[in-house]
Amino acid sequence: MKVVCTQSTLSSNLSLVSRAVPSRPTHPILANVLLEADEEKGRLDLTGFDLSLGICTSFSATVIESGTLALPAKLLNDIVSRLPESEITISDEPDPEALEDERATLISASGRFKINQEKNVEEYPEFPPVEASEYLVLPVSALTDGLRGVLFAASTDETKQVLTGVHLTRTEAGLEFAATDSHRLAVVQTPVSEVEERSVETESNNGDTGGREDFEVTIPARALRELKQMLGSPKESQSIQLKVDEGQVVFDFDTRHLRSQKLEGQYPDYRRLIPQEFSRQISLDRKELLRGLELVAVLADQKNNTVKFSLDSDKQELNLSVETQDVGSAKQSMSAQIVGESIEIAFNIKYLMDGLRALPANEIKMQLNEGDRPVIFTPLGGIKMTYLVMPVQMRD
Amino acid sequence: MKVVCTQSTLSSNLSLVSRAVPSRPTHPILANVLLEADEEKGRLDLTGFDLSLGICTSFSATVIESGTLALPAKLLNDIVSRLPESEITISDEPDPEALEDERATLISASGRFKINQEKNVEEYPEFPPVEASEYLVLPVSALTDGLRGVLFAASTDETKQVLTGVHLTRTEAGLEFAATDSHRLAVVQTPVSEVEERSVETESNNGDTGGREDFEVTIPARALRELKQMLGSPKESQSIQLKVDEGQVVFDFDTRHLRSQKLEGQYPDYRRLIPQEFSRQISLDRKELLRGLELVAVLADQKNNTVKFSLDSDKQELNLSVETQDVGSAKQSMSAQIVGESIEIAFNIKYLMDGLRALPANEIKMQLNEGDRPVIFTPLGGIKMTYLVMPVQMRD
Repeated sequence: MKVVCTQSTLSSNLSLVSRAVPSRPTHPILANVLLEADEEKGRLDLTGFDLSLGICTSFSATVIESGTLALPAKLLNDIVSRLPESEITISDEPDPEALEDERATLISASGRFKINQEKNVEEYPEFPPVEASEYLVLPVSALTDGLRGVLFAASTDETKQVLTGVHLTRTEAGLEFAATDSHRLAVVQTPVSEVEERSVETESNNGDTGGREDFEVTIPARALRELKQMLGSPKESQSIQLKVDEGQVVFDFDTRHLRSQKLEGQYPDYRRLIPQEFSRQISLDRKELLRGLELVAVLADQKNNTVKFSLDSDKQELNLSVETQDVGSAKQSMSAQIVGESIEIAFNIKYLMDGLRALPANEIKMQLNEGDRPVIFTPLGGIKMTYLVMPVQMRD
Repeated sequence: MKVVCTQSTLSSNLSLVSRAVPSRPTHPILANVLLEADEEKGRLDLTGFDLSLGICTSFSATVIESGTLALPAKLLNDIVSRLPESEITISDEPDPEALEDERATLISASGRFKINQEKNVEEYPEFPPVEASEYLVLPVSALTDGLRGVLFAASTDETKQVLTGVHLTRTEAGLEFAATDSHRLAVVQTPVSEVEERSVETESNNGDTGGREDFEVTIPARALRELKQMLGSPKESQSIQLKVDEGQVVFDFDTRHLRSQKLEGQYPDYRRLIPQEFSRQISLDRKELLRGLELVAVLADQKNNTVKFSLDSDKQELNLSVETQDVGSAKQSMSAQIVGESIEIAFNIKYLMDGLRALPANEIKMQLNEGDRPVIFTPLGGIKMTYLVMPVQMRD
């Protein structure tokens, strides 16, 4: 193999696929990036894969000799990212000065590197083929909105299995994203008009009818975080393809591909957790509430992570307070439009702040019943999102 | 005590003195910031002190009642830094609603905090008085140049005692800064014309003669790092006062004071380590050399942290190379003006990069003799600095 490309292209693609390379690989070969150069197509493909998550990118390069190389991802990334913008040649041709030297070479304008390459490159695992007859086409912006709105609420506790994922549901009404760690729940709905369905065979629009199949799938949050990173700040018009089969999901975006194993197991029936009627409703300025919480959170600690909301219906005022015996107390007041009776209710302050940071509007609505029932936060206008959080018992 | 001041003033001064507050105090009271409000002077003084390093600042405030408070530094800093710009009132007056509540209160526009205060405020240690009859006045820029040039070379190993400090020498020739961890040495000289000496009694310039006394002092690098931070990016015209007595040094800058214990013990006679004659001299572009080192450093690791310099006098070329058995090798070439014979010499790459980052010019000179003798790097023009580094033995 011998290939020439520019530093900037190689560097950005390397850092992308490296995100799927495990830092503690179960098999040594997985610590590598796979480089596949095709002389005929004039393309270089890069792949990173940890057996669950795989990222592959493809870009134009001057391929002098086709071939495949597996090189240590971290080392290669560290070198290429530090090189100045110039042409880079990567090759596994034997060094004419040292024929027994089997190391790969990387040559830039100012110098050369020799890198011990993985000899058993054929052991690098192949992506299992996707067995899907149809795929969805959705705007990248809808996908990033959905991910931004729910990813934070997925559990980071690996023992929670299906809760470490984001649940995607395709219905007549559109595409719905949901994540919960059993203490809070975030749901975002993408309108139906934005989702298109096409058949793999014909590559044509499947029309408006019967072909549309409902499905649901739970995708590891880790894979979706990488997907969100990969999509960056999408342009309005860009779209992404999503294929789902028995065991995996594949996102195709431009010349970039991300695939992930599905999470097995029944996802909780979260819709029935969301109350449909409320006895109280408060309109709030999201940023002001967040600032107030950030202030009183200074007094909260790991022992007592609770903030008390005192809704004063007469004064149309919301008071936030945190009280800790060892340190002190904090109180912040803000005006709010309150419909319903005054009430005191307490929350885990971290959960509240997480949700408020993700809500995609500055005017928000908080809806609740009694102090031991779930509370929901929704944006006024814009993206359709529901953030549900369970109150905690108040201390006296 | 009751005092009103603005959030921005309080916040910047708090974060400054907090740098002297120990994260693991030997005595609980040292975790506090001391606030001293003087009604007559209309001033609030803040102090942080870890018994070795002390920082004190003083600023105008509306003092309604004089008094002294000791409040937890981290908590106070966390609260004040998050508050929006507004007036802040700090008080230890009893709460009219809860007279037995002895907590201090902090009131801002949007809310209030109650903070458990240190009751035995009189236990907060006082700064020992400075017994110096004279002090030096030097431009802040000269001080920051000196610190920037040598601080990095001081040892971070607490058992190395005097080597954890920066050595200051006042001679006829000016003020000299030096730091070494026994592997490398950095020296910066400030010209004499920039240092003034004054008597404490008369507060007047002591003239140009007999009163000028030589001295030397070793100051903990930690204190000087905080001093450098405190000085920020100084204006050309600003000056700082330095007092030295038997046990401590004091820097007075504007209304800010930093004092530190001196480090006891004989500082090494570093001047005799610097060779006066060299058989080889190389002129180099500092940034190019640094970039080359950063690149080959990717291949260096903890087992082999060595970079080889191959000076090719015929080609007028410098080659940098790193070779590791497990990973691979790296080589970078650059042109250089070389006077003297070709030679190979090896260094600890980290030590070299530290020094090159600190050298205050882009054109630099490297001077050496044989491969086992000390090498010095100096800037061409500008500040007078010498960076000496010992080569390491080359592997074959």
